[in-house]
Amino acid sequence: MELLKNKILQEGKVLSESVLKVDSFLNHQIDPELMQEIGKEFATRFADSNITKILSIESSGIAPAMMAGLYLGVPVIFARKRKSLTLTDHLYTSSVHSFTKNETNDISVSKDFLLADDVVLVIDDFLANGQAVHGLVDIIEQAKAQLAGVGIVIEKGFQPGGAAIREQGIRVESLANIRSLVNGKVEFFSEVNAK
Amino acid sequence: MELLKNKILQEGKVLSESVLKVDSFLNHQIDPELMQEIGKEFATRFADSNITKILSIESSGIAPAMMAGLYLGVPVIFARKRKSLTLTDHLYTSSVHSFTKNETNDISVSKDFLLADDVVLVIDDFLANGQAVHGLVDIIEQAKAQLAGVGIVIEKGFQPGGAAIREQGIRVESLANIRSLVNGKVEFFSEVNAK
Repeated sequence: MELLKNKILQEGKVLSESVLKVDSFLNHQIDPELMQEIGKEFATRFADSNITKILSIESSGIAPAMMAGLYLGVPVIFARKRKSLTLTDHLYTSSVHSFTKNETNDISVSKDFLLADDVVLVIDDFLANGQAVHGLVDIIEQAKAQLAGVGIVIEKGFQPGGAAIREQGIRVESLANIRSLVNGKVEFFSEVNAK
Repeated sequence: MELLKNKILQEGKVLSESVLKVDSFLNHQIDPELMQEIGKEFATRFADSNITKILSIESSGIAPAMMAGLYLGVPVIFARKRKSLTLTDHLYTSSVHSFTKNETNDISVSKDFLLADDVVLVIDDFLANGQAVHGLVDIIEQAKAQLAGVGIVIEKGFQPGGAAIREQGIRVESLANIRSLVNGKVEFFSEVNAK
């Protein structure tokens, strides 16, 4: 998605060979018009998948997920993150480790909102090691719902998450797929390689 | 806002005389079309305020704030919540107590995104005791930015937060203002009283 790649090139800050900061438009400050275009792009890519629900995770997944939900005409659920859950009645839960923050959180979704006849699109802001996506897919499996695919705003394609998820036969659509952050420079995979 | 009030009457669950659960369309599952209408309503109410930025707080404030930002044509910042902040360089921070969760969190906003010439609209999902709004207003004051007002999706008008904020001379616009949850029944203030 050219608009997004240009925004990353203009405003993204390469902090190391593995860390890209995009908090001027995605993670802390949000550009609503860019999110709208991102939502339309996800809706176009998954237009034929009969999506009934979008599943994302707080906090940075919410904005792109909601815009995708608007243009697909379906509700959006965001999984809640907690250090540890004590009351798990009526919740689907999974455990997600963040390598960036070096912490493990329980994520949860109410059983009220994810049903066995749902066809679910997972949306998240970043895909690196794939832990959050694995947790969300685990919850969809617990609900016996169908997974239609995964939509990612920015994939760090040089990290193993995306490949591992695609090897499971899951469709992953990344709107920008980063090949390298070496020497402070953002390089993308071409669109063809990215899929 | 009639659409919102009807949604609350249809789907809101009164758990006690002070707790209203709206996690089917606002706090956990999100109704994107309702959020779009909420965003338009905030944009209409604050159309003449020369807003340059919206400030909200993760996680449930993000969806309505982003839609308001889309229709006002301005960026949205969401304050981050942490149990305690160790690195506060380059951050505006404040402390927010949640009576519901009985916990205190530090909230923070990067100094990069809130500037002295900004005119800021605060948006949040709920207003009850007003602690989150106080924290956000504190951060706006630290940034020496101008506060244009506060937009709330659901105010619990029988709790003291809204009155205290209005007494400071701050404009508060609540799209639904609840007068009472007694006997499991949601009663609203009329629109005139709500302002």
